[in-house]
Order: sequence, then C-alpha cells, then structure tokens
Amino acid sequence: MSESLISKIGVLTSGGDSPGMNAAIRAVVRTANHYNIECYGIREGYNGLIHDDFTRMGPRSVKNIITEGGTILKSARSLEFKTTEGRKKAYENLVKRGIDALVCIGGDGTFRGAKIFSEEYGIRVIGIPGTIDNDIFGTDNTIGYDTALNTAMDAIDKIRDTATSHNRVFFVEVMGRDAGFIALNSGIATGALDILIPEKKDSIEELFATFEKAEKAGKSSSIVVVAEGEQLGSIYDLAKATKNGFPDYDIRVVVLGHIQRGGSPSCADRVLASQLGYGAVIGLMEGQTKVMAGMQSNKLVYTPIEEAIKKHNEIDKNLLTISEILAI
Amino acid sequence: MSESLISKIGVLTSGGDSPGMNAAIRAVVRTANHYNIECYGIREGYNGLIHDDFTRMGPRSVKNIITEGGTILKSARSLEFKTTEGRKKAYENLVKRGIDALVCIGGDGTFRGAKIFSEEYGIRVIGIPGTIDNDIFGTDNTIGYDTALNTAMDAIDKIRDTATSHNRVFFVEVMGRDAGFIALNSGIATGALDILIPEKKDSIEELFATFEKAEKAGKSSSIVVVAEGEQLGSIYDLAKATKNGFPDYDIRVVVLGHIQRGGSPSCADRVLASQLGYGAVIGLMEGQTKVMAGMQSNKLVYTPIEEAIKKHNEIDKNLLTISEILAI
Amino acid sequence: MSESLISKIGVLTSGGDSPGMNAAIRAVVRTANHYNIECYGIREGYNGLIHDDFTRMGPRSVKNIITEGGTILKSARSLEFKTTEGRKKAYENLVKRGIDALVCIGGDGTFRGAKIFSEEYGIRVIGIPGTIDNDIFGTDNTIGYDTALNTAMDAIDKIRDTATSHNRVFFVEVMGRDAGFIALNSGIATGALDILIPEKKDSIEELFATFEKAEKAGKSSSIVVVAEGEQLGSIYDLAKATKNGFPDYDIRVVVLGHIQRGGSPSCADRVLASQLGYGAVIGLMEGQTKVMAGMQSNKLVYTPIEEAIKKHNEIDKNLLTISEILAI
Amino acid sequence: MSESLISKIGVLTSGGDSPGMNAAIRAVVRTANHYNIECYGIREGYNGLIHDDFTRMGPRSVKNIITEGGTILKSARSLEFKTTEGRKKAYENLVKRGIDALVCIGGDGTFRGAKIFSEEYGIRVIGIPGTIDNDIFGTDNTIGYDTALNTAMDAIDKIRDTATSHNRVFFVEVMGRDAGFIALNSGIATGALDILIPEKKDSIEELFATFEKAEKAGKSSSIVVVAEGEQLGSIYDLAKATKNGFPDYDIRVVVLGHIQRGGSPSCADRVLASQLGYGAVIGLMEGQTKVMAGMQSNKLVYTPIEEAIKKHNEIDKNLLTISEILAI
Repeated sequence: MSESLISKIGVLTSGGDSPGMNAAIRAVVRTANHYNIECYGIREGYNGLIHDDFTRMGPRSVKNIITEGGTILKSARSLEFKTTEGRKKAYENLVKRGIDALVCIGGDGTFRGAKIFSEEYGIRVIGIPGTIDNDIFGTDNTIGYDTALNTAMDAIDKIRDTATSHNRVFFVEVMGRDAGFIALNSGIATGALDILIPEKKDSIEELFATFEKAEKAGKSSSIVVVAEGEQLGSIYDLAKATKNGFPDYDIRVVVLGHIQRGGSPSCADRVLASQLGYGAVIGLMEGQTKVMAGMQSNKLVYTPIEEAIKKHNEIDKNLLTISEILAI
Repeated sequence: MSESLISKIGVLTSGGDSPGMNAAIRAVVRTANHYNIECYGIREGYNGLIHDDFTRMGPRSVKNIITEGGTILKSARSLEFKTTEGRKKAYENLVKRGIDALVCIGGDGTFRGAKIFSEEYGIRVIGIPGTIDNDIFGTDNTIGYDTALNTAMDAIDKIRDTATSHNRVFFVEVMGRDAGFIALNSGIATGALDILIPEKKDSIEELFATFEKAEKAGKSSSIVVVAEGEQLGSIYDLAKATKNGFPDYDIRVVVLGHIQRGGSPSCADRVLASQLGYGAVIGLMEGQTKVMAGMQSNKLVYTPIEEAIKKHNEIDKNLLTISEILAI
Repeated sequence: MSESLISKIGVLTSGGDSPGMNAAIRAVVRTANHYNIECYGIREGYNGLIHDDFTRMGPRSVKNIITEGGTILKSARSLEFKTTEGRKKAYENLVKRGIDALVCIGGDGTFRGAKIFSEEYGIRVIGIPGTIDNDIFGTDNTIGYDTALNTAMDAIDKIRDTATSHNRVFFVEVMGRDAGFIALNSGIATGALDILIPEKKDSIEELFATFEKAEKAGKSSSIVVVAEGEQLGSIYDLAKATKNGFPDYDIRVVVLGHIQRGGSPSCADRVLASQLGYGAVIGLMEGQTKVMAGMQSNKLVYTPIEEAIKKHNEIDKNLLTISEILAI
Repeated sequence: MSESLISKIGVLTSGGDSPGMNAAIRAVVRTANHYNIECYGIREGYNGLIHDDFTRMGPRSVKNIITEGGTILKSARSLEFKTTEGRKKAYENLVKRGIDALVCIGGDGTFRGAKIFSEEYGIRVIGIPGTIDNDIFGTDNTIGYDTALNTAMDAIDKIRDTATSHNRVFFVEVMGRDAGFIALNSGIATGALDILIPEKKDSIEELFATFEKAEKAGKSSSIVVVAEGEQLGSIYDLAKATKNGFPDYDIRVVVLGHIQRGGSPSCADRVLASQLGYGAVIGLMEGQTKVMAGMQSNKLVYTPIEEAIKKHNEIDKNLLTISEILAI
C-alpha cells in the first residue's frame, strides 16, 4: 500500500445502538494503529464532536469489547449537529486536533449528518452501516441485524411454548419502523402463521382467511409476527379485531421491544463488523470519501453515501411466498 | 418398598405453563412405570378429566421432552371444574378407568381444585408446584422459577446495553402478580437501581431519592425492575411520574411478558422437576394424599395442600437490603 | 406454475447431521404438499432407501421441528449404497412406490451418491447442502454453518474468561477436516491471537513470532484456534512445541468436538433451510435434476452437482489479513 | 450496626476461576463502601499479596462486572504463599497499608492458605466459596456451580441431537476431579443413560447391564456422563471397553473441558455471589474470622474454615436412584 492520505482519524457511533458496533470500533482502532494512523474515539455521536469529547485510542483501549453489545463510545441523536453552528463547532474541534477523516457508524440519520458535514467543510467521511433494521442499501446485511434476528427468534420460540400449551394465538411485535426484515425472517424461522410488514399491503380479511385455513389444517395455536411499522393498525388493534372475528380465540399480545437491540453480537455480526471497520480505514487510506463500506456476496464494496440513503434493501418477494407456503 | 396402594394414576398440568412441567410429567410417567403403576396423561388440565381426554403413557411417550418448555399435556384454566357437575363427570371418568390417584402439576388454583375434588370424592391427589412465580409454600423453589429468572435476567442484560449506550432510564416489568420473587432476584442479578415489588411499600418519593443518589454517585444510566403486581401504579404511570420529576431523563418502558414462561428449562428446574415427579409417585405409593411434594434444603418434603395454598414463601428481607446496598 | 413433472418425491438426510436439516425437511414436505406432490421421508439416509424405510409425510408430520437440531429422519453413512447391489435395491423400492425424484440433504458424500444413482437409474435428484463445514461450492453458506459458528464462538468466549483470569494460552480445536471456515470466522469473532487452518501454510516459527509480538503488545493471555484438518500437527503437538519454546506459558488444550454439530438452528440457518427446501421442490417441478439448490447473494441458484462436488468455496484471503491485523 | 471492628479490607480470588466471582467482588467492594470500609483489590490471588499488587477499589471500579465470567482480579495458584517467607512478605504488605482483614474467594486450597495465614499472623480472614465443583461444606451451593451445570447441560443437549440422529453412544466427560455434582445433575437433566462419579462404586458389568436394559427398552442412542475423577478408568478406556463389549455400537467421546468454567453467571449464581460478598463484609464487621460465608436454605451462615475444608457436601443418594429410574 502506498503512502496514506490520512494520518489522524476519528470514529463515532450515532443513532440507535446495535450489537457489533463495538466490534466495528475495535476494527477501526486496530486497523488504524496497524497503519500508523492516530485514532480518536468521539463520545455520544455528533454531540461529542461538537463538545470536544475525544479520547486517543490504541489497540489496548478496545480489548475484549468484541463480545459486548452496545457501544463503548455511547450513542445519541444530536439535534445540535443539525444546526450550522453545531457543525461549525464540530469542524473547529477537528481542525484543532488535525483530524483528517471521520468513520461514522450508524444508520440513515448518521449518514445524512456525515454527508452534509463533508459537503460543507470538505472533511472526509466514511460510513459503516450499524443498525438492527437492515434497511441500508449497499450491504447485504447491516451490523446488528443478524443478532437481532436471533434475539427475536429466541423470544418467539419461548412464546411458542406457551402458545402450544394453551392453544393460544399470540401477536408478537418486533422492531422495524420502516422495514419488515426482522419480522419476515424471524417469522419464517419460528413458523409464524402470518407475518405483517410495512412493505406488503395487508388486510384484515386476508389475516382472517389465514386463521380459517390454519384451523382447517388442524393447527391449534398460532403466532402472528407484526413489524412495528405495519400499516394495518397497531398490534393491539389487530388483536382486538381478531377477537371480534374469532371470539373463541384466546389471544395475547407481546411487544418484544428493546431486548432486540442488545446482547453479545452473533458470530456473523462480529465478523461483518470486523470486515467493515477494516474496510472503512482502508477506504479512507485509498482516498474514498462520502461512501459507505458494505459487504456484498462476501466482497467489500463502497457505495456513495447518497445512494445508501436514498435506496433501500428490498424485501425478497420469494421469502413472502415461502413464509406462506411453509406456515401451515 | 412394600406392596403399593395404587395401581393406576393420572397426571395433568393446569394453570399457567412453566418450563420444567414436561420434565415433571416424564418423571411421573417413568417412576410409575418402574413400580408397575399404569399411568394416564390427561390433556388440558381438569378439562381433560371432565371430557375424558386420557392417554396411556409409557416410558417412550416422554422421550426427549425433558428439554422442552411448555407441557405436552397442554394446560388450561377450567371453569367447568369449579362446578359440582363438572367434578362429578371427572370422577365418573376416573372410576370408569379404575384410576386411584391424580398427580396435579400447577399452582395455587390447581391445588385448590385438587383439594375440593379429593374432599368430595375421596380420590387421592398429590400436587407438584409448577409455576414461574415461586409463590407456593412448602418448597424452596417452584418448577420453572429458576428458568424464568434466567430469561428475565438475559433480557434485562440486553436492555442494559442500550441503557448504557444511550444514558437512558429503563423501567422493565417482569412477571409476578402477587409475588416479587422474579423482580427481586432478576433485579439484583442485573444491578437494577431500584426494584419495586408488591411485598414492599414503595413510594414515588423514595424512587426519586434513589435516582438522585444514583446521579450523585455518577451513574449515567439505570434500570428499574417492576413486578407486575406492584401497588404503586402501572409501569407506564411510574415512567410518566419520573419524567415529570426528571424532565431531562430519556426514559423507556419494556414489558417482558410471556417470554418469561417459555424456553428450555434450566438444569436446576429439570432436576427439581425430576425429583418432584419421582417424589409424587413415591408419596402416593406410601399413602400420602392431599399433600404437595416439595424440595426444602435438598430434601423431599410433603406439605398438606391446605398449607401450601394458605401460606406463602416470604421475600427475604436481607435480599432487599442487599439490593439497595449493591445497586450503586 | 404449469403442470408439474413430478407427483411423488422422497427426502433423506445423509452424512454428518447439521442444525437446520429439520427445517429443510419441513420445507420440502410442506412445499410438496402445497403443490399436491406426495412426499415420503426416508430414514437413515441411503440405508433407508435400500431397506425400504419410507414414511408418508404431511404438513403435520413436520410440526415444530424447525427449532430442533439433528434430523428427525436420522442420518447415516451408507456403505451398502456404494455397491451396485445396494443401489439396485434402492431403485426397486422407488419404482415400487412410484417415486419420481429424491431430495438429498447432506454434503459431498451425499451428493456423490445421488449423482451415481441418478446416472445409473435415471432417477431425478436434487441436492441441498447440509453440513457445518461450509465446504460446498454453489451456495454462500451451507445449512448448519452459521449455527456451528455461533456455538464455537460461545464456547471460545467462555474459555476466554478463564484464559484472561489466569493469564493462560489456550489452543482450541474446532471442526473442519478439509476446510478452515469455522476456525477462521470463530477465531476472528473471538479475537484469537492466531488461527491455523488447512488452506494456509503455517509454520511453528510464524506462530512463535506471533506470540512474541503479542507479548510486546502487552497481551497477557491468548487463544489460538486450530481447525481439525490443520497440517502443521495435532493440537497436542502444537501445544507441546509451544511449551518448549515458551516454558513460562501456562498452556491448555480444548477440543470442542461434537457440540458444534447440534443445537437449535440460528435464524439464518432456519431461513436458509426453508429457502433451499422450497427451492429443491420448485427445482424438481421445473425439471431440474442432478443439481444442488443454493443461495448466492440472497438468490436461489442451481449448480450442477458435479460442480458442487469438484469445486470448493475458497477462504477469503482478506479475512486472513483482517484476522492478523485485529488480533493484537 | 454498631461501630465496626474493621476499617480496611482486602479482597482476592484464588484457585480455579468460576462464574460469579466478579459478582462476589462487586458485592464485597460495594458493601464495604456502604459501611465506610476502605477496600483493596489484590491481583492474582496470594501472589498479589506477596508482590504488593493492590488497587484501591470504589463502587465505580466494579461497574457492570456482575455479568462477566472470570475474575477481574485474576486468579492464580501461589506456590510462594506455601512458604513461610512468602507469607511473611504478604503480612508485611498488609501491615504497611493498615489492612485489617481479608476476603478470600476460592475453594479448598484458597481456604487452607487463609487459615494458615490467619493462624500465623492473627490477620482476620473470611472465605467465600467460589468453585464450580460444589465440593465445599457449609453452603448449599458454591458460586459458579449453577452456571457450570447449565453450561454442561447445554453442551450435552447439543450432543444429544447428533446421538439421536446417528443412533450413537456418546461418553461425555464433565469437570469434577473429586466430586460428581456436575456429572450427576447435568446427567439427570439431560436424561443420561448412565452417570459415573467418584462417589459411587461403578463397574463395567453394571454399565454393560445398563446398555442391555436400554436396548431392550428400545433406546437407539445413549449418553453416558462421566465425572473427571471417575475411578473406573479414563473416559477413553471406558469407551474402548464398551466397544469391545458391544462391537456394533457407534461410540464417540467428548471432553467438555474448560468451557465449563466460563460464561456469564446464571441468575442464581449472581444472587448467591451478591449474598455471600455482602455476608463476608458483614461477618468481618461483626467480628467473625476464620469462617466461610455460605447460604443454607436461603439463610446466611458462617462455618469455621476448618470444617469447610475437612467435611464435604455429600451426593444425595436419592438423586442416584432418580437418575436410574428416569433414564430409560
């Protein structure tokens, strides 16, 4: 590798935390160290950039964090960074320390901030997709998604025990405000009778038809997995409507909530985070900027941040078919 | 062992399911088989008794179920068994098959049904405490309690990742309508800042004082574990009141719900269930009736069902002190 | 979909079992049922084919098996199927029942058997890659691989606790006789100091140099992950050689062994198995034969079995670099 | 509580690490802090005492360690502490810092060292039983035992998947050089066909008779759990002998090894460790010395260290009976 364009970088995590962010931080810090690039950790996302909350990080600062959920740099949504004053302060702090480039780990909002900041001040930025929602274009999976899938699945498996023992119908809400990836995959993995996601036009009539089909097939208990962002109504509304339609059903609602964001990352997430943290530093060294590092078909790819924000990973239509055929 | 008083028994699970019920069923069936007692599984609790839903069970019928949550016999709360007609039908079904005695796995309600039935018809009954709530007198732990503790703890550990990463306050509701065992123990195990349970008189003032103390001690995030049956108000009320008192706090609510009832039982629960299933059959063979089999200090003990229902395991006051001292 | 070419199929699992095989069986059975194809389960791999051990399977036969490791059809390595007599008997049993096609779930050996059988008797076959080793060409991942990675990782995480507490060096052997995928990925995920795999030429000198580098960097404990098929010597030889080179080291050896084959499949494995089970039946319906169903970049692809056997997924050289850079 | 006898204490972990040691350290540190007692952490057991490796610890030093396996103070077996010179240096270090008392977390060997040291120099000591083996008298369970049971059980559950799928016999070795607690309880919890432990006189003839009985009962696969300290022979010898006796058996050996020592502690272990850490400090404050803090029937008890070393928790004979009756 020829002489690097950069000598000092900062790394931050922003937006909702996801399992594997620590593994990504570790990879950024150690790869930087390997190539003699100074690395600074910035606390609480863009807030730390504005309030000058930087720490010099070396290989030992990230010892053993690969196993830990959350982010040791902490995360936040920064309102101040949305103001020109905020970004000005942030820039001055970078200049003061001589930092050439930023690695920004997070989702859509994080990337939007990075893009504007880079356009305004010419600072070089590279994004790493860290979110459980998997709704970022330019990478097969986002960091944390695989762990969240397993967490949701384990929870639904447990709920299945009670559903089966009591011949009950459970409506289970999983995370995903704009995307049904978690719902669709955890639903298939747990044999959910139906899966309701924002990407698909659902109707109560179809849901009821599915219940009727299930009864005919001899199923005595069922789980319906619903994404947070489902358009048909809240999970409580759905449960109520179902009770009206099927008064004999013993129905329960579970909202899995924040357990889906935490936990020790899965092997796939740790490896992905290691690849992307490495890839981000390499990218910066090779002159990349305003791109996101991603993995597609086991290959490191850089996607313009603009594209990563605008486009979205699409739900695999085939998976919808599979979920219907295999449920009963 | 001298000649047994019984030659045919039935086993059923009733009330809320709990992990380890299957291990208990397995132990009843295999112990009965070992002593040449015929064993019948009765489905859906007392409903199966009334509607004659019996199956002959042998050692192979319970193959591999020791690892499974829920109950293969299914469970239900039977309104019909609360009527004299219902119990009469139940009795006739037992007479018809020549069944001498019943093993009833469940909680308070299950035992109450067994007691009345036995008093009315002289049928011999023995109870096995299967409930995640641990609120049954006469045994150190109930079947499923240890598993539920670990499930609640794992979930709260995951929530902790996000709480720490975002400097948030989480209110987490765990199961326990009448008893704070799950809340108290999972709270201590996860370093909860405060633990609110029905057995303790809590006040908003004390809760606020605890938050203030935590702030002074430098804690930047906190988890408050609340038992379902807490008297101070719903978890949403508590969160709202806290937001009013501490407007800067970033507060979230998670209701763990039914994930706490399911899952593969822990080693302690499988062993306990094996001991109690064995102990129930042995007890019947030795002439016990209207008692509950329990383990106290690693010894098998039989407690009159009446006592098991009336008295309650008490929360260890020492644990409350410990939880306060260790939280900060 | 136009009229199907097939009306009766058989499904079997052969070779070493892997988590997700049951999910694949379930998908085959339910997809077949959906398209009105009769489906027979064949027990113990090719042995069941020879000894006529077939069971008619419907949607309810595969109820709840998606969560279970192992294979309900059982698996075996069949010596008899390597003989022409064996295969003749197998063919006659298929003819007798009017079975048109076979879905064969397993690895290299399984596919070799399927290929010969199909060539000899014109029976239509489709393969599904089920093995934890991930050494099958034509699919990004094999069924069971992701689960095995997580199992190996969890085990090594636990070992790390003791390594750190006692300042020890652990050599940990993971599965992979011909392939280093499990070793490489679980090693990266656990921050292993070094990873020894058959695909890479290792030397004791390099291993020793790595230990020296780690010492200089201030590491007080280390884990070396070694694939079963490593060429440099057995794990015990490596430990002994290291003890000779570094007499002060407190060294331990752990062979993870068969725990890596079992367990409830991960979400990724259950979804993959569902996709491939579905894809296998669809493939047969569309006229495919002597191919393997695989997933590449989230797309269903069919690869000639011959190619799947001959070629191999290659270790990503980038991952080797990453593992070295991030370890210290 | 009246005026305390102590104002400065040290805490150390010694011997093999066990999950929950960190929770015990945390409880000691925070309880001491609560009662205004200065607390010092001593690294690497008695070695740190000799080599003056002390750190002042406050409530924040033990933040979040309750979830972690291993010991942040590190552990070691100290040969030097067995010499009078070693102990003299240790004493001088305590005097120099004005430390009044020691909390020693570990097993038999740890307690022996504490006892001699206390007798020689009048230093006050209290023990906390931290070992996965559960072989310490004076407490129902030792810290780490419950976690180790669950780890062993989870591993054997996974092995069961393969055993069942391939109709195999597995010999699985679990930890326990002198005690069969882990073997007996994990064996019952996993439905092991036979359980071989040092406390019971086993014979090959009986083992063979059990295999024959299992065959007759229709079992097609089996697991035999063997404690490390089993007297009948090594697990490899047992497997070989069985192969000679039953040449048709497909036999495998798995040695679980060090995975049993690590991992995030179970809820029961975290609570137990919290109780004992608290109890140790309270005990010292109340004038206890040369005792071990333990929990018996949910009550805090202090047992003379001498007794804790000499006596042993005995295997429950009832459990042996239960394991035999339920296995088939």
